[in-house]
Amino acid sequence: MADDVWLSSLITETPQKGFELAIKLARMGVKYTQPSAEVRDKLRAVYGEDADSLILSSQVVAVNFQTVAAANNYWK
Amino acid sequence: MADDVWLSSLITETPQKGFELAIKLARMGVKYTQPSAEVRDKLRAVYGEDADSLILSSQVVAVNFQTVAAANNYWK
Amino acid sequence: MADDVWLSSLITETPQKGFELAIKLARMGVKYTQPSAEVRDKLRAVYGEDADSLILSSQVVAVNFQTVAAANNYWK
Amino acid sequence: MADDVWLSSLITETPQKGFELAIKLARMGVKYTQPSAEVRDKLRAVYGEDADSLILSSQVVAVNFQTVAAANNYWK
Amino acid sequence: MADDVWLSSLITETPQKGFELAIKLARMGVKYTQPSAEVRDKLRAVYGEDADSLILSSQVVAVNFQTVAAANNYWK
Amino acid sequence: MADDVWLSSLITETPQKGFELAIKLARMGVKYTQPSAEVRDKLRAVYGEDADSLILSSQVVAVNFQTVAAANNYWK
Repeated sequence: MADDVWLSSLITETPQKGFELAIKLARMGVKYTQPSAEVRDKLRAVYGEDADSLILSSQVVAVNFQTVAAANNYWK
Repeated sequence: MADDVWLSSLITETPQKGFELAIKLARMGVKYTQPSAEVRDKLRAVYGEDADSLILSSQVVAVNFQTVAAANNYWK
Repeated sequence: MADDVWLSSLITETPQKGFELAIKLARMGVKYTQPSAEVRDKLRAVYGEDADSLILSSQVVAVNFQTVAAANNYWK
Repeated sequence: MADDVWLSSLITETPQKGFELAIKLARMGVKYTQPSAEVRDKLRAVYGEDADSLILSSQVVAVNFQTVAAANNYWK
Repeated sequence: MADDVWLSSLITETPQKGFELAIKLARMGVKYTQPSAEVRDKLRAVYGEDADSLILSSQVVAVNFQTVAAANNYWK
Repeated sequence: MADDVWLSSLITETPQKGFELAIKLARMGVKYTQPSAEVRDKLRAVYGEDADSLILSSQVVAVNFQTVAAANNYWK
């Protein structure tokens, strides 16, 4: 993973693309801890039906979106 | 979802509209992980009656509201 | 709820009034997800006696208080 | 509680007094939700022996300490 | 505890010492709530073997490290 | 651990290396609390298969990434 370039910049064209980058960051945070795509897919089937897991996921996105939004000076 | 434009700006007219945008961001954070409206509706019926889920939801809104408020220079 | 004006400014006279606004924001975060006052009252009776729920609630207030305090330039 | 003045300033003489103010803010966040001292004392006996509750409490303090530290320009 | 001076400055020589101060702040957040060293030692034996407790602890350190890093202007 | 130098700077060449530093900070937050590599390896096998643990881990990374990104002025 360290050899893949998956994050070359925090700058995005629009707030929405910034939000989508925040989602990617949240997923990469999981991927570094659990590199197996097979395991992650299995888990996603479970937590995608669990309200608290979904709310927690949304919070990780929110924290990452703060970073991306600040990097983009809030697209002002 | 990536084709829909649902977030073109973080700027809102009033703090209250900013808070409502924060709620939208929290929900979109869930929607990207669980795209099925049917599943989300089913889960909402459950977590809407669970105190901890509601408190966690409010926290996600709070984190997103920090971002929106900063983007709007706190509506000063 | 969208028709009610309940948040017209983040500016408060004192830090304490700012803290109380943070509490209001935390509660509104819950209210938008669970609009029924009856359900919320029932849940409050439960989580008011649960230590972890109270600590989580205090955290939501803390996150909102960061926003309100920054908006008021920390009442300096 | 709204009639008591318990927070007139975020400014403290030292970082340590700032940390202690952050603890007070965390406790007040609980107190506004559960005003009964009797209930809070009962709960404290329980969560004081629960590792996760203590860690969560420490997190609420940490979030409030961010606010107090920023208000004091980090005592620089 | 209030009589002990344990935090006279947020400034540290290096980022690593700042991280170690963040750990101290996390522990002090627990200590103010549970002053008994005996109870804390007993709990540490438990949560030191619990993955979620360790992750939550790391999060409290992360929040405190934000404060310490900002105080040190990120050691730039 | 205090004798090892593992963090001499928050500055990284790229956002991706910054994200990887955030992961390291999250792991060090665990390591200071649970110094035994053997115990940590055993726990990792468990939480690597638990969705909520992975989401929580990703959140710790997100909080640390805020710090690293700010230190690097968002690599702008």
